[in-house]
Amino acid sequence: MARTLVRTDWNKVDFDKLFLPGLSVDTVIFGFHDSRLMVLLLQYKNTNEFALPGGLIRKKESGDDAAQRVLKDRIGLTDIYLEQFHTFADPDRSDPSFFRKIMKARQMEPGPGHFLLQRFVSIGYYALVDFTKAVPVSDGLADECKWHDLKKLPTLIQDHNQIVKTALSSLRSNLDKKLVGFNLLSELFTMGELQDVYETVLNEKFRRTSFQRKMLNLGILKKVDKKWTGGAHKAPFLYTLVPNEKQ
Amino acid sequence: MARTLVRTDWNKVDFDKLFLPGLSVDTVIFGFHDSRLMVLLLQYKNTNEFALPGGLIRKKESGDDAAQRVLKDRIGLTDIYLEQFHTFADPDRSDPSFFRKIMKARQMEPGPGHFLLQRFVSIGYYALVDFTKAVPVSDGLADECKWHDLKKLPTLIQDHNQIVKTALSSLRSNLDKKLVGFNLLSELFTMGELQDVYETVLNEKFRRTSFQRKMLNLGILKKVDKKWTGGAHKAPFLYTLVPNEKQ
Repeated sequence: MARTLVRTDWNKVDFDKLFLPGLSVDTVIFGFHDSRLMVLLLQYKNTNEFALPGGLIRKKESGDDAAQRVLKDRIGLTDIYLEQFHTFADPDRSDPSFFRKIMKARQMEPGPGHFLLQRFVSIGYYALVDFTKAVPVSDGLADECKWHDLKKLPTLIQDHNQIVKTALSSLRSNLDKKLVGFNLLSELFTMGELQDVYETVLNEKFRRTSFQRKMLNLGILKKVDKKWTGGAHKAPFLYTLVPNEKQ
Repeated sequence: MARTLVRTDWNKVDFDKLFLPGLSVDTVIFGFHDSRLMVLLLQYKNTNEFALPGGLIRKKESGDDAAQRVLKDRIGLTDIYLEQFHTFADPDRSDPSFFRKIMKARQMEPGPGHFLLQRFVSIGYYALVDFTKAVPVSDGLADECKWHDLKKLPTLIQDHNQIVKTALSSLRSNLDKKLVGFNLLSELFTMGELQDVYETVLNEKFRRTSFQRKMLNLGILKKVDKKWTGGAHKAPFLYTLVPNEKQ
């Protein structure tokens, strides 16, 4: 469905009829694997502009569904745990010159009252996924859609650098509260795997014993019997989330 | 400024020119005093409809400023610490019949395409104030604007009961993280006063010693020398927030 927007000729899209005016979603997709944290960025075709994957909201679509749709289109994944974290509603955040630029790159000459040139308020969502399993899909609008190291982000359009910053802050404070990190782990995981997620997201190191104590004190982990017996005395314990406590 | 909307004849208001389409703010104002937690509600004139104080966003106004303006109009307070907590963007949350009803109560007959009858997405904000210092102001639109016991809320319009529930959940999880409760306290406060805020908001009792230990472990409180000497050995210690740590 959503590919209609990005693949078709914008001159033929009836924005007013299809979408909510002045409202968008932007997604900050954090990719984690093996102690590395990345962010998914688009680079718009025929421009040097980097942006977060985002899109408009259809007339009868929820904000959550719009964000899921964007995610499906951009990295081809469905049923991702998306967390709405903040809505960006500063009157100066929209930059009509950006849209004019990418529209011109598509041989369009939008009038001053064009749907895409108005002020936009954007609802921000983030997700945390395993970037080895989430392979970005390029579409007709973007000529590059790939993972970037969080520590070396380029300058993004509009307020998108600020959106990433706010999302990272929410992700960090929600590691315990909403158990976001567990989306990355298998049903059974070791304490070491869990610690790797926490250390990478929070960008700090923990002592093994105090990390383990803190996690067990959350009251959400259950130690699972080791089933593999050969050399099992050396294998680390496996844990699982306690049922009904996972949000 | 905002009184223009609520005091003037809606028939004469050029909504399209003044406000962002399909976007509103709703505020959940929690009032605390002496172990009681209340919520500020409006009752619309000539209807039996209860609602959260809310409003539209002006063309060049931020969401935060719109929420501050609503708060100033409704309870006459300025510079309140407002926390944006969630944006409500379900396509079914808007109820045009509600707006039609309150417009009829004002002798209006809105056409089907009226600005107020479209789908609305609403940005939610909450605040925590001392309800003895925040006296609600009634305006021309509402015939009742007052504090209601959080435990005995009436049925509210649209999804406003859900908005209160989500706000309360955010308030609770932000007590430590964003130190929301400290807005209620003087610069110097006792551990007992702080404990009263926590117990009332979280609706649970804590042991005095473990509450004190938990608060001191946050690393944000500093014990202040008692200055009043007469009978000072019986006076409780006073605390203050550590500078630079207050958000």
